[in-house]
Amino acid sequence: MSNIAVLGAGSWGTALAIVLADNGHHVRLWGHREATVKEINECHTNEKYLPGVMLPENIYGEASLEKAIEGLDTIILAVPTKAIREVCQSIKLTNGMYTIVHVSKGIEPDTHMRISEMIEEEFGNHSVLKDVVVLSGPSHAEEVSQKQPTTVTVSSTNMEEAERIQDLFINDQYFRVYTNPDVVGVEIGGALKNIIALGAGISDGLGYGDNAKAALITRGLAEISRLGCAMGANPLTFSGLTGIGDLIVTCTSVHSRNWRAGNLLGKGQSLQSVLGNMGMVVEGVRTAKAAYQLSSKLGVQMPITEAIYNILFNDVDAKSAVDDLMGRTKTHEMEDLTNILDDRGI
Amino acid sequence: MSNIAVLGAGSWGTALAIVLADNGHHVRLWGHREATVKEINECHTNEKYLPGVMLPENIYGEASLEKAIEGLDTIILAVPTKAIREVCQSIKLTNGMYTIVHVSKGIEPDTHMRISEMIEEEFGNHSVLKDVVVLSGPSHAEEVSQKQPTTVTVSSTNMEEAERIQDLFINDQYFRVYTNPDVVGVEIGGALKNIIALGAGISDGLGYGDNAKAALITRGLAEISRLGCAMGANPLTFSGLTGIGDLIVTCTSVHSRNWRAGNLLGKGQSLQSVLGNMGMVVEGVRTAKAAYQLSSKLGVQMPITEAIYNILFNDVDAKSAVDDLMGRTKTHEMEDLTNILDDRGI
Repeated sequence: MSNIAVLGAGSWGTALAIVLADNGHHVRLWGHREATVKEINECHTNEKYLPGVMLPENIYGEASLEKAIEGLDTIILAVPTKAIREVCQSIKLTNGMYTIVHVSKGIEPDTHMRISEMIEEEFGNHSVLKDVVVLSGPSHAEEVSQKQPTTVTVSSTNMEEAERIQDLFINDQYFRVYTNPDVVGVEIGGALKNIIALGAGISDGLGYGDNAKAALITRGLAEISRLGCAMGANPLTFSGLTGIGDLIVTCTSVHSRNWRAGNLLGKGQSLQSVLGNMGMVVEGVRTAKAAYQLSSKLGVQMPITEAIYNILFNDVDAKSAVDDLMGRTKTHEMEDLTNILDDRGI
Repeated sequence: MSNIAVLGAGSWGTALAIVLADNGHHVRLWGHREATVKEINECHTNEKYLPGVMLPENIYGEASLEKAIEGLDTIILAVPTKAIREVCQSIKLTNGMYTIVHVSKGIEPDTHMRISEMIEEEFGNHSVLKDVVVLSGPSHAEEVSQKQPTTVTVSSTNMEEAERIQDLFINDQYFRVYTNPDVVGVEIGGALKNIIALGAGISDGLGYGDNAKAALITRGLAEISRLGCAMGANPLTFSGLTGIGDLIVTCTSVHSRNWRAGNLLGKGQSLQSVLGNMGMVVEGVRTAKAAYQLSSKLGVQMPITEAIYNILFNDVDAKSAVDDLMGRTKTHEMEDLTNILDDRGI
């Protein structure tokens, strides 16, 4: 049994802490709110993020980042994408070789960096880092905390380390973990699904049916694959849990924040009014901009991303954007993807 | 504008006749029930299969198979899988070169033949057949008849003929058609999705959540791909409209007959009672048997299909079968698929 730090006591960090604790590990769960840490230690609950769930007693709340990681070599980083750099800067990794497992999804605006790249940059010459691993997949935190069957993928270029992390998380009861060496594909799939979830919400908001949504998800996956392959990903990754699996969960759940924002856009609300009403960050909006810029830079056709970008930022009417997509020149289904594979000799 | 025969006046045949008629073609729609044919010609409706939908006036109901195809070279075959051979035997293709476009999904029990293989076998030496084309994709007939945006794929080894069929069906308003030369992949994806839809229903019936269902769909797609590749399909096809696209529509719609049957199985009903209550053919049950036999014959691992087969035919309890799936030896996500690709030099 190991001692493991989970940094971030939101719903996903807390759910992953439960999995590790269920597997017998001692888990230090860091939260930036003192009250949450106190609640974890005294009541063994985190009502704000996982209402009604009892936490195992081998989860220890910790308010000090320094104490949370003291003497440990494995750190689960479960903070929002926009807090990644700040938390990395607050961690003092003074000795030993650390493995950081991140569980966030997104691409940094402007730099277009993936999250593992951001983490590596923050730790400079990497001398204190043994490895950066990503854990991703179709996983509502609430269901994990209720021990509903769930599957995820852990990915690292260092497969030995990926397998060590797999062993920490996997159990026979409800949490099944696969490994995949394709970090780029795993991170790009997780980040870009939020754009397609916006699109699925727009389609539903326009009153279109299941056929349109299935087309959008499938063709959306194809363009995510094209961009991912141009960035060096393995196309097979997008057919897996962190690609299509996560896309399905996000696009077909009315609980998804991105779907809900898209739904309001499809019903005719402006972006400003949607974001104002929701009162929280809609990750797909940031990612749509980053992906649109990336696709231009790399010369990759992403018609759905472009349509959503135009709806979000160029006041294009949602219905006209969808009609334009339907009227595109007829094509062979796999033409572009096949070309990329040919170019790469796959 | 062409003259085209659509054989089969069920919901899908009638919906496709509407698309062709909307594109300006003259459509002869053959139905085996005289009353339906009369209703099509006199009322321009087909209330049993597409309630509330008005048919264009350039759809002509036809009760005689012979007259329906007289003087034409393009035949859309839109009958249930189990009626394919019977209808083929009733068609007299005496002169000229015919293209048959089939739109059905399934694998023949015992022979394990795909539908295009059945058609080719029925026409013996093929001297009257120019080509067999398959049209497939995520498409509820009701939505197509309401002109909701829909995408499908047409597939043939003869791409020139596939493109001619693409031109007949495609329009800018609501029906977008792609081409794909991989007939095996397109037919296998369409057939095997029904097994996974049964599984999705079982998972929902057991009370499991979105994480479990997304895992089932994703891992289900992986094993369909493995079988398809062993039969000569291109793995990319399973990431397209006829693979994951159709799978999403079938697994997430409560209107799917296979999902509903699975749901009752998950809630503890026996197969006999489920089939008795539904009073109609559940295609996934027949396909599960055929696919299980095929996987054994070809030596392809299909743990989900095997679990569903055992629930259906070996009285295995649904919950134990799912628990067994969760407890399988840990693996690399793409191991098996990668091995197949390696073997085939892709």
